Amino acid sequence: VQQLLSSLAEIVGEKNVLSGDAVTGRNPGWCRTSLDAGLMVRPASTSEVSRVAAVAHANDLVVVPHGGMTGLVQGTSSQANNLIVSFERMNQVTRVDPAQGVLIAQAGVRLQDAHDAAAEHGLTLGVDIPSRGSCTIGGIISTNAGGVRVIRYGMTRENVLGLDVVLADGTVLEASNTLMKNNAGFDLKQLFIGSEGTLGLVTQAVFKLFPKPVDESTALVAASSVSDLVKLLTRVRREMGSKLLSFEGMWHDYYWGVTEHATTGNRPIAEEYPIYAIIEAGEWTDSRETQLEQVLSAALEDGLILDAVLASSLAERRAIWLIREDTDPVSQLTDRMLSFDVGFELRDIEPFVEGLSRAMSQRWPDKPLYVFGHMGDGNLHIILGLSNEEYANQKPFTDVIYGEVGRYANSTISAEHGIGLEKRAYLHYSRSEEQRLLMQRLMLALDPTSMLNPGKIV
Amino acid sequence: VQQLLSSLAEIVGEKNVLSGDAVTGRNPGWCRTSLDAGLMVRPASTSEVSRVAAVAHANDLVVVPHGGMTGLVQGTSSQANNLIVSFERMNQVTRVDPAQGVLIAQAGVRLQDAHDAAAEHGLTLGVDIPSRGSCTIGGIISTNAGGVRVIRYGMTRENVLGLDVVLADGTVLEASNTLMKNNAGFDLKQLFIGSEGTLGLVTQAVFKLFPKPVDESTALVAASSVSDLVKLLTRVRREMGSKLLSFEGMWHDYYWGVTEHATTGNRPIAEEYPIYAIIEAGEWTDSRETQLEQVLSAALEDGLILDAVLASSLAERRAIWLIREDTDPVSQLTDRMLSFDVGFELRDIEPFVEGLSRAMSQRWPDKPLYVFGHMGDGNLHIILGLSNEEYANQKPFTDVIYGEVGRYANSTISAEHGIGLEKRAYLHYSRSEEQRLLMQRLMLALDPTSMLNPGKIV
Repeated sequence: VQQLLSSLAEIVGEKNVLSGDAVTGRNPGWCRTSLDAGLMVRPASTSEVSRVAAVAHANDLVVVPHGGMTGLVQGTSSQANNLIVSFERMNQVTRVDPAQGVLIAQAGVRLQDAHDAAAEHGLTLGVDIPSRGSCTIGGIISTNAGGVRVIRYGMTRENVLGLDVVLADGTVLEASNTLMKNNAGFDLKQLFIGSEGTLGLVTQAVFKLFPKPVDESTALVAASSVSDLVKLLTRVRREMGSKLLSFEGMWHDYYWGVTEHATTGNRPIAEEYPIYAIIEAGEWTDSRETQLEQVLSAALEDGLILDAVLASSLAERRAIWLIREDTDPVSQLTDRMLSFDVGFELRDIEPFVEGLSRAMSQRWPDKPLYVFGHMGDGNLHIILGLSNEEYANQKPFTDVIYGEVGRYANSTISAEHGIGLEKRAYLHYSRSEEQRLLMQRLMLALDPTSMLNPGKIV
Repeated sequence: VQQLLSSLAEIVGEKNVLSGDAVTGRNPGWCRTSLDAGLMVRPASTSEVSRVAAVAHANDLVVVPHGGMTGLVQGTSSQANNLIVSFERMNQVTRVDPAQGVLIAQAGVRLQDAHDAAAEHGLTLGVDIPSRGSCTIGGIISTNAGGVRVIRYGMTRENVLGLDVVLADGTVLEASNTLMKNNAGFDLKQLFIGSEGTLGLVTQAVFKLFPKPVDESTALVAASSVSDLVKLLTRVRREMGSKLLSFEGMWHDYYWGVTEHATTGNRPIAEEYPIYAIIEAGEWTDSRETQLEQVLSAALEDGLILDAVLASSLAERRAIWLIREDTDPVSQLTDRMLSFDVGFELRDIEPFVEGLSRAMSQRWPDKPLYVFGHMGDGNLHIILGLSNEEYANQKPFTDVIYGEVGRYANSTISAEHGIGLEKRAYLHYSRSEEQRLLMQRLMLALDPTSMLNPGKIV
């Protein structure tokens, strides 16, 4: 052990080898993530990560990568004798190139910092998620993060042009491609996006940049049914094309619960309706056509929506988004929150939520069920309010929810959060045996000794 | 052999097992593709492809997939004793779902037919390439095809939601995902996109659909330099956002050569300028703001461009595109055409073309050099006019071109055509040894007996 510690200290410097409470004290308490690794290193460069991996490989150590620790599926859980590689010191934005439209950042850069660096040039990254102040580039790549602008810019995968990666044996795969098009053989970076740290350690990434809208319109609307909102979505898409940035749904109990218990007392639409949505559109020219207002006025006249509020200031915009992004108020309603991240074709959203409500209330009458999420992408988040006892024995709840998800041929138990440890036992709901075997075959090919974040996904 | 033939006939039917001239007569004469396989089967379903693969696997037969045979890199070359799997009978559009915004098509569907099926619903696929009338869904996926609308919709990879694939041993990987977001473990379809048939046989695909523009404006412009055109590109992007559909460059000799020798006598701009570009924008509303015209008028006033013609009819639009898409007229100027497909950061386009012209003219004065391509994506096509003798010994020409490409840190020897056999010896210009070894490792993991399109890429 002493030999190992001094090898690691030689690579990253003594003060960047941590152990004991300095490691375990970092558990953010999300989900049921365990943080039992006794050892952590904090490398400062790709080459240090490479040397750390080589040492771990030679010593049969399991390596668990840490980014911003905002994941929700125990994707960073570690066991005794694991070695955590924290990317917190790799926090440099390496290059912002407005002419080429790319930003290069080390894995430990916070998403917000990358956005800020792009904004200095009037540009924006396509990926944006509520945890932007904590989550890191490496984490969003490992989980192929989604977020609030997928409807416009796609998932993280669609936004990454190149990656530098360290393989299990320390091999450095430099692939910081900045080209829009590159078909010179396999697109190897795809392997590492969304594989949750099981195939390699992402150390640096090239992101596409987009012109930042000169203006954004944000509306909160209310409707009598999901199907009316889906019709509105179709109409907004047709009339506004790629000006549509976000289309987020919030079912009654979620909206009401959050606004009832928020310390801000913020409730922009004060009437009760079955469902609410946040719709955001961007303008790239100064023409100031308030197109979102026009589309929503017409939808109000048609009865497609029942109420609408358009933010008239940045403060109002933030107040509207806070309802969607800050789930804390509902968490205060119960001991524990059990959260899900499921996905459907748009037409299946309504029957799924109805069926789930029925199934839940039959078995557990009056159990709080909060539904919200990226409705425009068919991605719902579900929060169940559980007692501590129920949370400790959560399988019956999970079984009911995934049982309902499984009724739909095109559905997923994870639209954006990933699988981690938390959903591994349920992967068969969304992936066939052939698919799971191929995932294992890839793990074996890239990481034959199961050194990289083992036990996650399959 | 007789046993093998009857096994195959049992799967696909006797008349769908072809041999001899019925196979070799299919060589379209592109590049130097060899078509020496003595045997071809034409399965009609994923399950038939699976059974064919299992038979090939059991008989140690190499399998080479055939789509529309429009590739340019000898990606479908076959040798004696290979078994060709042609997808020509798998030509059904399985589902068009305007509500979900997806189209599902078998691998043998021609791209044009998929576009037609989408257009019936006012929708469009994002992928469009000049060979749309011949190329197939399976081929564009295998090569991760680019084309004329990458600047708006991305490469084929960004447009595919799901794939059905048959692995080397006949295992069927059904993954016809129709969801916008699905993070349930690895995104396995990424493996098969752009891997040129070396990892599996794509049998069916799910494509995203987009609202078709209600109107398209097409302009031909002329400028005095590449850098002025790059400035124009930046301006058009900023002012028109995602209305920009295409930005295609044509250098003087290409434009002049094509328009001089086209049978149509079509030359919308009759003056000689150093460089021309086709710019196309879409309108999704009926507002009929002729925004492209405004942007180009301003650019003319500023001297950023020197001339411009805006198509005022569908016929004029087609005439403009014909200059870019029909390279036949330049092919008549020489015995043989040697074509390249290289990519750069935007700032490197001008010095690359200048350096290449210098290097070429030093060694081969007055050798015709035609440059054109998807300038907005940094992707240039280069055609050299060679004599038959020069074509037979083309290495010196290729070496000069890739030598010039290699001067730029961010460059590629294949932006969209792929590697095939043709560029395999040059892959090291664009991919490191570590990357090439990882490609081989993946081939070994998915196709341990090298049964699928072996020898291509690495």
